[in-house]
Amino acid sequence: MWEYDPPLRDMRFVIDNVLQAPASWASMPAFADLDADTAAQVLQEAGRFAKEVLLPINSPADLQGCRWQDGAVSTPDGYRDAYHAFCEGGWPALACDPAWDGQGLPQLLNAAFYEMLAGCNHAWAMYPGLAHGAYECLKAHATPELQETYLRKIVSGEYLATMGLTESHAGSDLGLLRTRAQAVGEMGPGAEVRISGNKIFISGGEQDLTKNIVHLVLARLPDAPAGSRGLSLFLVPHILPDGTRNAVRCDGIEKKMGIKGSATCVLSLEAATGWLIGEPNRGLNAMFVMMNAARLQVGMQGLGHLELSSQNALRYAQERQQSRARLRPEGTPAGAADPIALHPAMRRTLLSLKAMTEGLRVLSYWTGVQLDESEQHPDEARRRHAGARVALLTPIVKAYLTHHGHYGANAALQIWGGHGYVHEYGIEQSVRDSRIAMIYEGTNEIQAIDLLQRKALTPEGVPSAALLDLLAELRADADAAAALPSLAAHAANLHQSIQAFEDSTRALAAGAAQDPEWPLRVADDYLHAAGLLLMGWAWLRSARTVLALSATEQADPWYAAKLDTCRYGLEWLLPELALRLRLVGAQQAALPWLPAL
Amino acid sequence: MWEYDPPLRDMRFVIDNVLQAPASWASMPAFADLDADTAAQVLQEAGRFAKEVLLPINSPADLQGCRWQDGAVSTPDGYRDAYHAFCEGGWPALACDPAWDGQGLPQLLNAAFYEMLAGCNHAWAMYPGLAHGAYECLKAHATPELQETYLRKIVSGEYLATMGLTESHAGSDLGLLRTRAQAVGEMGPGAEVRISGNKIFISGGEQDLTKNIVHLVLARLPDAPAGSRGLSLFLVPHILPDGTRNAVRCDGIEKKMGIKGSATCVLSLEAATGWLIGEPNRGLNAMFVMMNAARLQVGMQGLGHLELSSQNALRYAQERQQSRARLRPEGTPAGAADPIALHPAMRRTLLSLKAMTEGLRVLSYWTGVQLDESEQHPDEARRRHAGARVALLTPIVKAYLTHHGHYGANAALQIWGGHGYVHEYGIEQSVRDSRIAMIYEGTNEIQAIDLLQRKALTPEGVPSAALLDLLAELRADADAAAALPSLAAHAANLHQSIQAFEDSTRALAAGAAQDPEWPLRVADDYLHAAGLLLMGWAWLRSARTVLALSATEQADPWYAAKLDTCRYGLEWLLPELALRLRLVGAQQAALPWLPAL
Repeated sequence: MWEYDPPLRDMRFVIDNVLQAPASWASMPAFADLDADTAAQVLQEAGRFAKEVLLPINSPADLQGCRWQDGAVSTPDGYRDAYHAFCEGGWPALACDPAWDGQGLPQLLNAAFYEMLAGCNHAWAMYPGLAHGAYECLKAHATPELQETYLRKIVSGEYLATMGLTESHAGSDLGLLRTRAQAVGEMGPGAEVRISGNKIFISGGEQDLTKNIVHLVLARLPDAPAGSRGLSLFLVPHILPDGTRNAVRCDGIEKKMGIKGSATCVLSLEAATGWLIGEPNRGLNAMFVMMNAARLQVGMQGLGHLELSSQNALRYAQERQQSRARLRPEGTPAGAADPIALHPAMRRTLLSLKAMTEGLRVLSYWTGVQLDESEQHPDEARRRHAGARVALLTPIVKAYLTHHGHYGANAALQIWGGHGYVHEYGIEQSVRDSRIAMIYEGTNEIQAIDLLQRKALTPEGVPSAALLDLLAELRADADAAAALPSLAAHAANLHQSIQAFEDSTRALAAGAAQDPEWPLRVADDYLHAAGLLLMGWAWLRSARTVLALSATEQADPWYAAKLDTCRYGLEWLLPELALRLRLVGAQQAALPWLPAL
Repeated sequence: MWEYDPPLRDMRFVIDNVLQAPASWASMPAFADLDADTAAQVLQEAGRFAKEVLLPINSPADLQGCRWQDGAVSTPDGYRDAYHAFCEGGWPALACDPAWDGQGLPQLLNAAFYEMLAGCNHAWAMYPGLAHGAYECLKAHATPELQETYLRKIVSGEYLATMGLTESHAGSDLGLLRTRAQAVGEMGPGAEVRISGNKIFISGGEQDLTKNIVHLVLARLPDAPAGSRGLSLFLVPHILPDGTRNAVRCDGIEKKMGIKGSATCVLSLEAATGWLIGEPNRGLNAMFVMMNAARLQVGMQGLGHLELSSQNALRYAQERQQSRARLRPEGTPAGAADPIALHPAMRRTLLSLKAMTEGLRVLSYWTGVQLDESEQHPDEARRRHAGARVALLTPIVKAYLTHHGHYGANAALQIWGGHGYVHEYGIEQSVRDSRIAMIYEGTNEIQAIDLLQRKALTPEGVPSAALLDLLAELRADADAAAALPSLAAHAANLHQSIQAFEDSTRALAAGAAQDPEWPLRVADDYLHAAGLLLMGWAWLRSARTVLALSATEQADPWYAAKLDTCRYGLEWLLPELALRLRLVGAQQAALPWLPAL
């Protein structure tokens, strides 16, 4: 009963009409051959894969989970076949460099692809998702020898990869890591080392999908400085190039709330063989190269869950009949009971889900467009400008999409009533699976601090150029909407919101000098305010895009529904911005300390 | 690592100091012998039972779940022993009438008891919880013969009971029920019938804790009117008085998101023997007698989860060390990393949890006090007044406590980071278990409609006397706080909030005549506004209660922390009221219809 209709029409509306990505592709040699129809075909095939291969094994895998025995891990039934189909379809190579046998498609399409994969089977999508991050990291920082040995096998899907960061005492604070690396010979690029330590929460740290696993492991070299500036990154394969087993052992897997098909492993390394990636003590920098893409991908998991929850809730609400509605659409006959989609409380929920899904799609795909420009645009100034925009948007995309992915699924559950609490209806699994994305890849609280302290404010205590530039662009868009009579009031509202947000930012920037804890107290509210502001922009821009179509096109009910949704978002959801800014700006008396227990 | 320290001190502060319940008991002959110390002892023993008997079997039972085979259900390991200890301790009789061998203690203490039971083991607490509702119903409506046969066995715990309402096509809309009853002889009080039909979501519909189960089943007599006015209530025992098995069969149990130790049964009745309770076609009325107590009890489940989440989160946050805090309490030495309880984002979460837990405790216990007065006060006018207050507060208590029980646990999970997603830390189970309370016993959306349409507004379209009376009492309390300099600003704020709430209610009442769907569109926001207003009152009243203590008493850090928490709630949480009222009062353009899929 949990179904999936790939949202190809909305994807195309956002990519082609709202964001006009094909014009951006045309400006970049890397994508000069790509046109809107080809991109749409890729997404259509991707949607088919997600729907036909991944969705059917999602619910059974949740009940079955992974099994660990004597260091070996079995993934749930069907995972191996799905992975082989994934590799045969060439999907791992989608957004990889043709120089490494990749297909060279934009990150934007990869993001849309992962939206569908994660919505249909979040747990399964963890395996290839991490490999793509490792690919980015090795491509940027590994020695040519290591690249030659590993990159093509990751691009083909023959090898999978993991990120070996967390230790039991070191999660958000990687500076506390204790895993040690000792060089075998000379220290230098790609130097061989022996690594010992214990890692936890390693997704795919052991599995039965590939014959080799490439672990990227953070560890300390002898005499490294304390804290995060003493971490180096190493490539540690499960199977060494000579075919022998490396000294990496999986000591167990976690029993988790969700993503039960993803093996979350405890790994121990006992003088395991590895090779240095990048420079000594610059391990975090080597990882940061893939952070933006990885965080965008995690955001897409949130959007995937929201899309699935939203469309299944709507489907159920249009079938399930309980009680008579106070009003009905014209021409709807009255029966013993009406579809619950007609009841106002359910309509509020369904419209909120739809508005957030569509708004977040615009925001995240926009980030994808900028990410591609930051990497591929021939003009360096454009690359830098896009890069700064991506850096600013990334923490918002990661935290705001995963927040709404989870809380949206949770709100949707209520549509099913008691059935929502039962496994077979699908939604409760989405609630559980989606919860992790608020935590990993930097908790949402860490994203909020990153946004406010490092992206929105400068060390000099003023709003950053990237932020002011973003606000200027939002204002230009509001101006364009103001010219349309039916949007003028909303455009004026958005202008006010932009100004209020800017005022809040300046007040924070100025006040932080006297009260340096202030930004930290309100960073979460600030991030939500930023997210809401961008939603307001996305709804207004989407509405404007519809109104720019011909009258014939606009007659399509799909566009009427899109306008309804945008207006709903602007009227019912945007008002939360005032509350968030009030909390940001009030600069309450110092927050009390918690009492000892 | 999931621990429980029964919140006896806060319970006593609320019962004795904030609400002065002992003075209320003294005014009622039924509780004339009860004093504050005796009540505290009862709660101390209850807390010990919850902590020592129920908590240890909570987590294993979640992993094990219930098993169904050939119509029989096995509850998880330890459930039977715990139930026997429960009966031996006389706990089922706590708030039952001494005329039926009950202990005759107030509903208030039963509510506090269920807070602890549900927090420590929600799934287990479902079994006795439903029996208490059946007891209330039979006591009020069954014939003396049925009472004689069943009541004492329910009070002793020898029998458990269920509520047989839901059918697969009839959840919130019980008017759609199809189960049929046919009288064997004459129709009259306690008439014998044969019942056939299928029920779902019957908690404890089959189990291995008691030798008999008393099902209260809603069904239709021949020629009954359509809809909910044609439902009659019947007592259908699993084992008939002659010792033979009745024709009630458990066809399976649900795989659920949580409360896995509670068997949620599919029951089929094939000409099962039953007896009429109350009058024909007045089945819903017979059930409504227990609705207020049952909904209060469900609210307590929310509070129980919130208390457990809150105290465990605080414990973990004071132990777990990650990163340095920007500020530390005076005298705290700086180390490599600080307890995360010092980080502002975590402090916001922890303080929000503590403020909501304590505020909701005041609100729900207050409702308990009024419930006791509505049932036991010698003065009829007082009984009626208290009854109207209970009717008004009940939907708020049910929906607002269960909302915060779940979303509070969910917010708390974030404190543990990745560990929060792992079963052994306890919090993820609380998130899953707590979710159901927002759905059953009338979904929270239904509570919101009940509050606004039936309790806050009259059929004549004006605010109800009960609401205006409540607002007058909140104002009187704000006046009393205004006299204290340190609370004067908060009191003025609360006054404004009360006025804004009243204005919103009057605008809704007046506008509903022209736009009858308006209240239905905003009922959820209205309920949250009401809940927030009551939280504002509870924090202010708690703060005033502390400030009325002697200087020596106030020197206790426990009271300083209580004041901190109240101020935090008033400053950081109450502002949401303005957003909720804005949504209530804006009377947006008609809500769009959802598009067909």
